Amino acid sequence: MTTSQARAGRGRTIPEHCSTQTVQRVCVAETDMMGVVHHANYVAYFERGRLEYLRRRGLPYKAMVARGFHMPVVELNVRYKKPAYFDDVLSVETRLGALSRVTVRFNYTVGRPQQGGAGEPEVLLEGHILLACVDEKNKPRPLPEDVVRVLFLPEVSQSDDLVIPGSRAGRAGNA
Amino acid sequence: MTTSQARAGRGRTIPEHCSTQTVQRVCVAETDMMGVVHHANYVAYFERGRLEYLRRRGLPYKAMVARGFHMPVVELNVRYKKPAYFDDVLSVETRLGALSRVTVRFNYTVGRPQQGGAGEPEVLLEGHILLACVDEKNKPRPLPEDVVRVLFLPEVSQSDDLVIPGSRAGRAGNA
Amino acid sequence: MTTSQARAGRGRTIPEHCSTQTVQRVCVAETDMMGVVHHANYVAYFERGRLEYLRRRGLPYKAMVARGFHMPVVELNVRYKKPAYFDDVLSVETRLGALSRVTVRFNYTVGRPQQGGAGEPEVLLEGHILLACVDEKNKPRPLPEDVVRVLFLPEVSQSDDLVIPGSRAGRAGNA
Amino acid sequence: MTTSQARAGRGRTIPEHCSTQTVQRVCVAETDMMGVVHHANYVAYFERGRLEYLRRRGLPYKAMVARGFHMPVVELNVRYKKPAYFDDVLSVETRLGALSRVTVRFNYTVGRPQQGGAGEPEVLLEGHILLACVDEKNKPRPLPEDVVRVLFLPEVSQSDDLVIPGSRAGRAGNA
Repeated sequence: MTTSQARAGRGRTIPEHCSTQTVQRVCVAETDMMGVVHHANYVAYFERGRLEYLRRRGLPYKAMVARGFHMPVVELNVRYKKPAYFDDVLSVETRLGALSRVTVRFNYTVGRPQQGGAGEPEVLLEGHILLACVDEKNKPRPLPEDVVRVLFLPEVSQSDDLVIPGSRAGRAGNA
Repeated sequence: MTTSQARAGRGRTIPEHCSTQTVQRVCVAETDMMGVVHHANYVAYFERGRLEYLRRRGLPYKAMVARGFHMPVVELNVRYKKPAYFDDVLSVETRLGALSRVTVRFNYTVGRPQQGGAGEPEVLLEGHILLACVDEKNKPRPLPEDVVRVLFLPEVSQSDDLVIPGSRAGRAGNA
Repeated sequence: MTTSQARAGRGRTIPEHCSTQTVQRVCVAETDMMGVVHHANYVAYFERGRLEYLRRRGLPYKAMVARGFHMPVVELNVRYKKPAYFDDVLSVETRLGALSRVTVRFNYTVGRPQQGGAGEPEVLLEGHILLACVDEKNKPRPLPEDVVRVLFLPEVSQSDDLVIPGSRAGRAGNA
Repeated sequence: MTTSQARAGRGRTIPEHCSTQTVQRVCVAETDMMGVVHHANYVAYFERGRLEYLRRRGLPYKAMVARGFHMPVVELNVRYKKPAYFDDVLSVETRLGALSRVTVRFNYTVGRPQQGGAGEPEVLLEGHILLACVDEKNKPRPLPEDVVRVLFLPEVSQSDDLVIPGSRAGRAGNA
């Protein structure tokens, strides 16, 4: 194990499975007069990605908040490479990047699958978010051990579980 | 057929199947300091609902735009009844409400399913949107006959088709 | 006094001075791929208008919240007439429309001044918002008498008071 | 002149006057359930800041677009230090940070003035944006010489010019 890997995961290498993929379809409200997705809108994609990262490992963020742990964003970085357009289906990869006693870093890659599905998706942008664990008064608070454990898990479920119970459709999709 | 029905659907009764259900999970960005979804954010839910209404009937809005038909919102109405909270899974029903030569009305009901899935979802808000069909110069333009036909169809698909081709996950969900 | 006027202002005619004008310059983030302001963005203009209505009469909404009075939106209505474009300077008129024991209605007109400033501004859209007065638990609560009094006042100040104390610029404007 | 300064301003030191201050008052829509401004909303503050930077030097961005020059964001970085709350009046400093043949960097500081106006404002966050100059087809395009000249100018006006011609109010403020 290299020093860099050790730092990345509090003495642990971050496993390849520490990644969650969500999918977004671009709607009109997200575009701007240049005909592309306005750069500010990707920040919401990132939020959805990390909420889903937690949920698919059995720990909804809501449960953390209920226990008095909040995770505000303390750093945001995005490098935009190519534009996205209305109706594009985008993949958002949220990958655990690093952990310290009070912070978690997620790395993001937003891609657009190739027509036909062959080959790697085109990378539209990359970024990362650094979150700090704080209490209700915004004071830094060490990440609880069970949360750290969950962050290292593979996904329990690969779906976002957007099923309305009793719905005729079985699964009612998200536009 | 009553006069009211006739007006509603250009001489045709609007069938019960002219409805599409989408599902949204509330994220932090959509809440406000009152701890509830800020009223402005539901307008995007409505947009996603009607884009999905068209897509699931085989006519993506993008294809209409490519043919020179645009459908700007000319009227928006929302009656808020109950608040929604972070992490709520909400159902958005988009129902064809009325058609004239150049306008389409969609009626919306946003609900929250009961815990356990028994019974009807709690209705959080109701609303409608009136769209006008215009050309690229914003001049009113009659809805093309094939679009009218599509609006009266049942859903061809009940999913939002958010599948990344070749994805390990099969279906990668939307947070 | 007519019955309609009586209902409008709890037994009082609403004076002409019960109106506040705010001004917004359209930024890129508010436009969409049609090159116009996306319809959802005007809802924030309305919010700013009514917050300023209160402030300019000496009652910041923050002070109401501190006393346990909240005013969620229970109805939203917008009729869009003409599009607005990037960099347009728009006037937003917020006018007291009606009052009941627990609700306040504001009527809105968003306009674009004519080039050169002669004549009436072009009306781009009209709308209204109905607010209900509630307590912290979201239960209806009669509007306090001093708030009702303030709502009927003329503006004390016609500025939004966006001055940074000690700023070199005297007044640092809002883009 | 150091090498770093030379790089920063294409062979020129960037003068102290290459800075513009805008002011924002936080509205409810910008807050989230934690009671603070949601981190994504500052991205719009940055956009307003740089649009105003150009306008106050006599070059509205709209005029650049009309000439076929667009300036999409290629990098975004924000370091959040302290939260902002509803009704806070925030100062946004937009400072020219660096220039290359096709890129412009703006550095941002968002502050909250101390109560009473004495002393320096509390710094809430810092960040920067890198813009690339492109043509209508999104191909990199050298910044025109007259735009470079304007970027180095002091402000011609220190107001955002949000005056509705013929308005009774003289100056109609922005909430």
